[in-house]
Amino acid sequence: MNYEKEKELASAESVKLVKDGMVVGLGSGSTAAYMVKELGKRVASGLSIVGVPSSENTRLLAIENGIPLKEFGEIKKIDINIDGADEFDPYLRLIKGGGGALLREKILAHNSKVNIIIADSGKQVKRLGAFKLPVEVIPFAASKIKEELTLLNLSPVLRKVDGSVFVTDEQNYILDIDISNQTNLTNLEIKLKSIPGLVETGLFIETTSKVIMGVVDKTVVLQK
Amino acid sequence: MNYEKEKELASAESVKLVKDGMVVGLGSGSTAAYMVKELGKRVASGLSIVGVPSSENTRLLAIENGIPLKEFGEIKKIDINIDGADEFDPYLRLIKGGGGALLREKILAHNSKVNIIIADSGKQVKRLGAFKLPVEVIPFAASKIKEELTLLNLSPVLRKVDGSVFVTDEQNYILDIDISNQTNLTNLEIKLKSIPGLVETGLFIETTSKVIMGVVDKTVVLQK
Repeated sequence: MNYEKEKELASAESVKLVKDGMVVGLGSGSTAAYMVKELGKRVASGLSIVGVPSSENTRLLAIENGIPLKEFGEIKKIDINIDGADEFDPYLRLIKGGGGALLREKILAHNSKVNIIIADSGKQVKRLGAFKLPVEVIPFAASKIKEELTLLNLSPVLRKVDGSVFVTDEQNYILDIDISNQTNLTNLEIKLKSIPGLVETGLFIETTSKVIMGVVDKTVVLQK
Repeated sequence: MNYEKEKELASAESVKLVKDGMVVGLGSGSTAAYMVKELGKRVASGLSIVGVPSSENTRLLAIENGIPLKEFGEIKKIDINIDGADEFDPYLRLIKGGGGALLREKILAHNSKVNIIIADSGKQVKRLGAFKLPVEVIPFAASKIKEELTLLNLSPVLRKVDGSVFVTDEQNYILDIDISNQTNLTNLEIKLKSIPGLVETGLFIETTSKVIMGVVDKTVVLQK
């Protein structure tokens, strides 16, 4: 399967939804990177928009691609937010945060009028959980939260990159947990967020407006 | 009313509960400061304990008073946690965080076998909410969360000290909100914690084991 081609197709389709004057949330990760490049081409052709990046990586990529940016705190509302996902299910619920930017991504999604998810066909699943769910935790509490999540049978693993603990844009750590046996994701989300020091989860339950998925050489739009 | 005397009495009573070999959570704020000093006297007299501070201020005070410390991440469990509160109601629910240390204080309380709250008699209320509830938010999302809390009629105010935005030990901001009209505090807590970027609230609903309150020249113990 040529997932890179599918990502490109979904990205090209998604930026057609962006209109002059819009404030655009810019997601993070490999699929969103294609979208940022496509959007940059449209800006070069005269499209007038303002982008709000969801990570430092995306900020740099957007600048490279000539997209005018504003800080999230400066704008009133995001008109359209375009981002990738690690998995999505038939209810358009998502696991996100494979790249570690889940906190700002979730903040943008929560504050956007429309949320578009772009994905290759490998991201579509019947139920979430083959991909590990990232949860962002403050370093002070990381080891105790790991113990607590272990007792909840969620098999947390502290994320490391090249042997060093991975640190998010907000200077937090990530625990990747196994939710493949969970039956009620809404309750799981409430339970996880009740743990002091657990800042955010990569579970996106309600926000997605539609998914644009690349399938071989075309795109498919999925709506609730 | 001599609240300082009441704080001292409650503090002196609380440290009698600390036994040799215990891991002791050390709260923050003006009342907890008395407790740290009292505990330091017991350590000087031979009590063998390990303290876990809930803030940088308390860490410094504990060191000054000769209390051996460990990092929260190093210890297995806290045997007893002693902390102050800004308000407590008849169900021993608390508003905490007037000093800005609510996040670490809540992490310690959540991970302690026994939670003792020490207070002067001015902290006892019929219902919570005369004191503003602090919520800790990440700077990236602070202005948008303020807008959202305003729409929820919670009248958020960004905390400042001497004209500058107050920054917590975790490098976050505090919004002080008005919960005096709220009828269901459990639902409020879930709703607040569902907002991405809102890291923690100063509402402590379930954790308190007992309150030791100074009243004029004696102490009263309140239990659920």
